[in-house]
Amino acid sequence: MLISRGGAGLALGTAFLLGGATTQLLHSHGAHPLHPATPPAASSYEERGPPSKQELGRSAWTLLHTLAANFPEGATPRQRARAETFVRALGGLYPCAACAAHFREYMAAHPVQAASRQELSLWLCGAHNAVNRRNGKEDFYCDMGVLDARWKDCGCEKNASLA
Amino acid sequence: MLISRGGAGLALGTAFLLGGATTQLLHSHGAHPLHPATPPAASSYEERGPPSKQELGRSAWTLLHTLAANFPEGATPRQRARAETFVRALGGLYPCAACAAHFREYMAAHPVQAASRQELSLWLCGAHNAVNRRNGKEDFYCDMGVLDARWKDCGCEKNASLA
Repeated sequence: MLISRGGAGLALGTAFLLGGATTQLLHSHGAHPLHPATPPAASSYEERGPPSKQELGRSAWTLLHTLAANFPEGATPRQRARAETFVRALGGLYPCAACAAHFREYMAAHPVQAASRQELSLWLCGAHNAVNRRNGKEDFYCDMGVLDARWKDCGCEKNASLA
Repeated sequence: MLISRGGAGLALGTAFLLGGATTQLLHSHGAHPLHPATPPAASSYEERGPPSKQELGRSAWTLLHTLAANFPEGATPRQRARAETFVRALGGLYPCAACAAHFREYMAAHPVQAASRQELSLWLCGAHNAVNRRNGKEDFYCDMGVLDARWKDCGCEKNASLA
């Protein structure tokens, strides 16, 4: 459901609210009863409710790692400053206050490195592993070949003319 | 599959690459043949290949809208400057070059507004609708009630002690 501008906005807004709550209930009940190995069909991006803390984290890391994997090999001083500013600003803006505080603590001990694609990619991998360890997960293997396979070729340039 | 530090890193890296390619092939073939209304089960976050341009876009908008929905009602000058800097920096760093150029064009015509939660939320909604129109999609209804239902209560504060 897309909510269009127009006179029916308020009524549609109520349906939107209910739709979001229903989606969250479905997700909280786990796997679909008829297809236990298949996650329930997600409602469309536009109609669902707020992301969970985990979904928000995955979105942020997806953006950050992909950005780093496609950062210039040798950044100019301006590009370097922009990346460092961006990452530091995120530490003050991230919607999960406790996560943001942990990220700022990490940056205080390990200042952002963004002189090159490799520096930024490896710095972010280390920062992500600090979160992984906190959450009892295994480390990701911080190697440029592995990081590139996971994040680099997002098809953005190939599709650039369609953007 | 998580890739752990250790001697088997290179072999695991190869499997990781192949796993990513397989995942992309599965996705490119569309719906699951046995359950056409249900998307194929995704591989885990750690083992798949790079996000598509569309997945990258959803991740970026998820972070931005949720950040805006939880931004202070009345931002301090420092918070305002941080948010404006963050959004502008993204225009120079976003991995899809054409998308980034369009975003910078939008910002040149509509400077980032971040004096409050409402200003930033509505500014981002307008920016997202500029992309929606370019992609032939309907506008999202830019109303704080609708935006809050979609993005605000991500459960981050409730779970803060677990972070």
